[in-house]
Amino acid sequence: MKDIKDYIRTIPNFPKEGILFRDITTVIQNPEGFKLAIDMMQESLADVDFDMLLGAESRGFLFAAPIAYNLGKAMTLARKKGKLPAETVSVDYDLEYGVATLEIHKDAIKPGQKVVLVDDLLATGGTLKAMAKLVEKLGGEVAGIAVLLELVDLKGREVLKDYNVYSCAQFEGE
Amino acid sequence: MKDIKDYIRTIPNFPKEGILFRDITTVIQNPEGFKLAIDMMQESLADVDFDMLLGAESRGFLFAAPIAYNLGKAMTLARKKGKLPAETVSVDYDLEYGVATLEIHKDAIKPGQKVVLVDDLLATGGTLKAMAKLVEKLGGEVAGIAVLLELVDLKGREVLKDYNVYSCAQFEGE
Repeated sequence: MKDIKDYIRTIPNFPKEGILFRDITTVIQNPEGFKLAIDMMQESLADVDFDMLLGAESRGFLFAAPIAYNLGKAMTLARKKGKLPAETVSVDYDLEYGVATLEIHKDAIKPGQKVVLVDDLLATGGTLKAMAKLVEKLGGEVAGIAVLLELVDLKGREVLKDYNVYSCAQFEGE
Repeated sequence: MKDIKDYIRTIPNFPKEGILFRDITTVIQNPEGFKLAIDMMQESLADVDFDMLLGAESRGFLFAAPIAYNLGKAMTLARKKGKLPAETVSVDYDLEYGVATLEIHKDAIKPGQKVVLVDDLLATGGTLKAMAKLVEKLGGEVAGIAVLLELVDLKGREVLKDYNVYSCAQFEGE
């Protein structure tokens, strides 16, 4: 059987010089690859007790949505500033240059609800940490973090050390 | 059984005064609602012969991804400028104020492939028309257009008259 890494394309110097970008469009473009990715992510959550999936705009949506459908779980969205139509709460987080803002609908999570954060990639952990803060601002509990890929050298797990992180494939020293 | 419209929230004056925004976050947040939406969209494609789904960033991803997984079809992405890492082709299209650009990976579609365009909403048809142009630039064929909602008064179907459009719920004169 092929490994999930076999479906990932590596693109040098995107978005800037010196970065090896791990491209997941080649995963979703291959039905066997996409099935393997979703099934692995679901499997990683088999023992996690949760009510809801929070998908990160926008590649996180690609993975959270099929899992939500398959497991019959609620799904909600963490989006960039100004995209969500109802009342929101927001968290600012640092990018390499400048600050970004992530928002969630105020009524998306009820106090005590257990939420799994979903994104394609764990790199520095900035986005996922901001998502965890959004969940906690609304009184929810982060039940776990599920990503397809982890760039181990960037040490995102240290930023997310308060949470259980489930990654399906790891890139390290390459 | 509940109607898909029962799961849609209407938010007045978003993104600007006078607009009734149809919010699909309440659909995906309800497992029965999301299942109904995906099942209806899949059902609308039952007689369509196609190879691939093209999802529109970013709400289109929410619907295209579960359908791709369920049907074992390839999926690819139409994204805003600068988001796709490999070589792209692009189409400019008019917004109410100014111009936007949509891109697709150059190798995402092979000549002759039959592609279904997926988005949450058909409004004026601008985004979906741009997606059709992307498919055709790469030599693909638009096999159909699947959306959850259609705002009939905005006459998007006229802009898309060369294609078969499948919508699961229509809002008209309201």
